[in-house]
This record gives sequence, structure tokens and C-alpha cells, in this order.
Amino acid sequence: MAYNLAPLQNLIDQFEKMQGIGHKTAQRMAFYVLGLSKEEAEAFANAITEAHEKIKQCRICCDLADDELCPICKSDGRDRSVICVVEDPRDVAAIERTHEYKGTYHVLHGAISPMDNIGPDQIRIKELLARLGDGTVEEVIMATNPTVEGEATAMYISKLLKPMGITVSRLAYGVPVGADLEYADEVTLSRAIEGRSLI
Amino acid sequence: MAYNLAPLQNLIDQFEKMQGIGHKTAQRMAFYVLGLSKEEAEAFANAITEAHEKIKQCRICCDLADDELCPICKSDGRDRSVICVVEDPRDVAAIERTHEYKGTYHVLHGAISPMDNIGPDQIRIKELLARLGDGTVEEVIMATNPTVEGEATAMYISKLLKPMGITVSRLAYGVPVGADLEYADEVTLSRAIEGRSLI
Repeated sequence: MAYNLAPLQNLIDQFEKMQGIGHKTAQRMAFYVLGLSKEEAEAFANAITEAHEKIKQCRICCDLADDELCPICKSDGRDRSVICVVEDPRDVAAIERTHEYKGTYHVLHGAISPMDNIGPDQIRIKELLARLGDGTVEEVIMATNPTVEGEATAMYISKLLKPMGITVSRLAYGVPVGADLEYADEVTLSRAIEGRSLI
Repeated sequence: MAYNLAPLQNLIDQFEKMQGIGHKTAQRMAFYVLGLSKEEAEAFANAITEAHEKIKQCRICCDLADDELCPICKSDGRDRSVICVVEDPRDVAAIERTHEYKGTYHVLHGAISPMDNIGPDQIRIKELLARLGDGTVEEVIMATNPTVEGEATAMYISKLLKPMGITVSRLAYGVPVGADLEYADEVTLSRAIEGRSLI
């Protein structure tokens, strides 16, 4: 139901624009805002404008940054001879959570998808190539999503990089740890068999 | 995972404070904001501060209003001899959606709940009593929630109103339309039997 109160309806509409937020949830969120103190509501509104103003893309890896460089590109402790290529800044966060990877990243901001009119020029491939000119980088790990688009992007980039003498690798496919084999799909299972290792 | 970028983390935290919003959803919302244009982000932030500034409580019925009176109390087409008492502004919206009720409302903003330290003085009962002095109101329909707190509140208010010669009624209990009898709980079913009507 549309509320008769324009400011309330407007706020509900704003929340509802977000992907995955239905009308009921948007309404609940708007009532949450009405229940805040004046200071809290201002802090909330400021958080939106500030994040939007201050968060930019790192000049080197295109990850999100609040400065010209992101914290990883600024850091002295990272191995600059390896670049892990991902589709999205959230993927960087996911890999960082493993605490296993010490190299740098490159965020493509998408994957090649002719169906959605996204070609190689619409994602940050040029910026990746620009990083490979000086010979520091020895390996590029393709960590695009295990989807048709992600695969196509990984193949496209690997074909560009191989003539440059750079090792290109791909994340391993297999059954997720903790999952039940019974519920694994056939493609994942056959990839897991292909990629089996000696124990 | 905490992001190293303070403005982003702050925005995620703001979304995560909302009831029912987990970390993953809050993160997705923050990335949605980053993907907006500058104008859209400002409109979003303004919607929050504006709704918060402009939405007040109606001087008569305590429902939400963007003026001194809410649209229903302002309207000439409503029957002022009936007041429907609800716990929350959302309940007004729910009843309005039926297009059946033509009286006015009174929003308590809560229910009596000794467990949460909410007594009769913490909800808008005083304001309801103030509306009953001049003899216009003939019936008060209690439409508090069918919970222990809602029941207790309805009983408390009806005891106050009966000596004033005002008819006090209660929403009917019964099986929800479209529901399966098999899954109705015993209390609802026994209330439905008690309240059965001739056909």
C-alpha cells in the first residue's frame, strides 16, 4: 500500500530500489529510520554520501580505495610478482579472508558477456595489461567466477598474456569442503575427478 | 570480514544495525550505494533525513503525519463516532488496505508489557482518553495484536472505557481466510468455534 505521506513513501521507494529488498522489508527499514534519533538518522545519511564520495578505484588494481591506492597496493608486505584477477571487489574480500594469498589483485569490475553487451573494453583488461609491461609480474591467477562469463573472460585474458611469457593459472575446481557428494552437480564432480591429486 | 576502508565499513555497519539485516545483506546494500550516481546517492541520503525530519505524530490519533494532523484525521469523509485502536502505524496501513473501515484510528505506539517495562503510561492511552470526553465517540474497536500483550492492553483500555458508556469491541478471532484447517493451532480453532456464526 502506498502511504499518503510523501517523505515516508519516498524513503520506502529508495530502500525498495535495492536488489533483493521487497516492499515489506523496505517498509520495515523506513520505520527503522523513523525510530532513530535525529543524530543517528544524520549519521546514517552521511554514511551514504561519504562512502559514495570517498570510495574510489585504486589507480593500480582498480579495487575500491579511499585514497589513490588501495591498502593492498600500498602495502610493503605483498608479493608483486603475482596478480590474482577477480571480477568484483567482494571477491578480493573473500580471498583476503583466507589469509593464504600474499600477492596483489586486479579487479575487472565485471566479466565478458556478449549477451549483456559487455565486451573486453567494458571491463578493466587494459589496466591489467598496463601492469604487466615492466617484467615484475611472473604469474597471473585467474579467479573469475566459475560461470560461462567468468570462464570466457579467463580464457580471453590468458590468450593475451601467454605470448608475453607470463604464467597464467586458474583456481582449482572441485567439491566444496564440507559439502555432501550426493548433492554436488555432475559438472563440479567431473571437474573434481579430473583435478584429483595423489594422497 | 571488516573492510579496510573506513567509509565503506561505516556504511555497512549502518545498514547492519537494521533489524533483520545480516552482514552479507548489509554488504550488498553498501555496494549498491557505491554503484549509484552522485545524484542518486544524494537523493537516498536526503530521503533519510527528510523522512526523519518531516514525519511527526498526528496531534489527534498519534498516527504518522507530515503535518499537525494525519490525512485521516484531516479528512471529512471519516466517521468520527468510531475509533479503531491499534498498536502501530503499520496496522493502520493494513486496515486501510481493506477499504472496509470508515472510522478513525488511534495508534498506541506499543502494548502494555510488564516484561519490557512498558506500562500504560508508556503508550498513548492518555491521548485516547482525551478524545473521548466530548461524547462524539460511540464505539472503540480494539485492534491490538492477538498476543498476550495486545490482549492485556485491550482488556486494560476496555475497563477504562466501559464506565464512560462507550461500546468497546474486539476484532474477531478465527481461521484466516485461505488457510488450511489442519494447520490452524488449537487456540485459534477453539476461538473460531466459539465465535461461529449462522449461515
